[in-house]
Amino acid sequence: MTFKALILIADGTEEMEFTITYDTLVRAGISCTSAYVAADDDESSTFTNPPFAKGSRGINILPDTFFSPQEATPDKYDLLVIPGGAKGAETISSSSPVQHLVRRYLQEGKYVGMVCAGSLAALTSSLPKQPLTSHPSVKAKLADHFEYSDDPVVVSGKLVTSRGPGTSFPFALTLVELLCGKEKRKEVADPMVFPPGTFA
Amino acid sequence: MTFKALILIADGTEEMEFTITYDTLVRAGISCTSAYVAADDDESSTFTNPPFAKGSRGINILPDTFFSPQEATPDKYDLLVIPGGAKGAETISSSSPVQHLVRRYLQEGKYVGMVCAGSLAALTSSLPKQPLTSHPSVKAKLADHFEYSDDPVVVSGKLVTSRGPGTSFPFALTLVELLCGKEKRKEVADPMVFPPGTFA
Repeated sequence: MTFKALILIADGTEEMEFTITYDTLVRAGISCTSAYVAADDDESSTFTNPPFAKGSRGINILPDTFFSPQEATPDKYDLLVIPGGAKGAETISSSSPVQHLVRRYLQEGKYVGMVCAGSLAALTSSLPKQPLTSHPSVKAKLADHFEYSDDPVVVSGKLVTSRGPGTSFPFALTLVELLCGKEKRKEVADPMVFPPGTFA
Repeated sequence: MTFKALILIADGTEEMEFTITYDTLVRAGISCTSAYVAADDDESSTFTNPPFAKGSRGINILPDTFFSPQEATPDKYDLLVIPGGAKGAETISSSSPVQHLVRRYLQEGKYVGMVCAGSLAALTSSLPKQPLTSHPSVKAKLADHFEYSDDPVVVSGKLVTSRGPGTSFPFALTLVELLCGKEKRKEVADPMVFPPGTFA
């Protein structure tokens, strides 16, 4: 069985968080699709071809497709990922179709991953109070509504949250482990050559 | 003073190694330019606009410019970076203009960074025997010609080498420290939220 992941991307997405997650999941044999979420004021949302996503630090990435609420449903994917980057996370987390999908994925027992400011989507999607982490810069917005943790990766049922670029490897490897098992995690981590004592 | 880095990219470049390096250097205030190196059999090399670089795990990145030996010279940049990814590193390291530039950068006291299979460029550029590391998969090609090390990051004069995606953060942070100092390294690493005990 091949698992499938849908990874959202927008202008201002943190390109390390996006790339580390996508690439690590692909290394585990998970089929990844990146979908561009247009900002409300972005006229390119009427184009057929996705525009570039302009990363938070200037790397331009070509998404695989445009985000479509009809195509992004939990019957088609096993995992939905929302990366950070302040501006990108704001666009994604304020999208009401995304908020609706976050709730549907969790209701239908599919995984949802959020990293960095992407965790704001837990708030905008009105998820119930539960353990969660995020980038420290948005902790104040989340701490009252969730059981806020400073752990690098927090697994709460099917909701997996993490903190920033520096925790994106353990975040992605945790998603690999949850979908594909401990052995696959090790198989993926070993050739990535982490320094002794880190992550894997 | 603003430092400038030229980061090479090709079809098959490891997109995490590329992205982590570029993004981390930008966070340090270093001006980064990515330049697409076309494979010998790539007819797109005659285009004016760079094509996408197709990353080793399927992420398509739009380079900032085409690699041009005339524009890539050490009087214009403080640092030349060669990322890994088997196919991308082969294209870049077998380019004789790149080999020439690697030697010129080092002769003129500018930094050269190589990560993963990118370290093959040290061999193809006929650099003198010195401490070096690489992805373990290409160790056999390099071990006779260099003082091979298994350290995550090896600094040998102005040549900085590293091992893979899992060492790309310490690789990039080491380049930040060498160019901008220890304090800037910490300033960049802190908001990236590494798990306690890793890297920073």
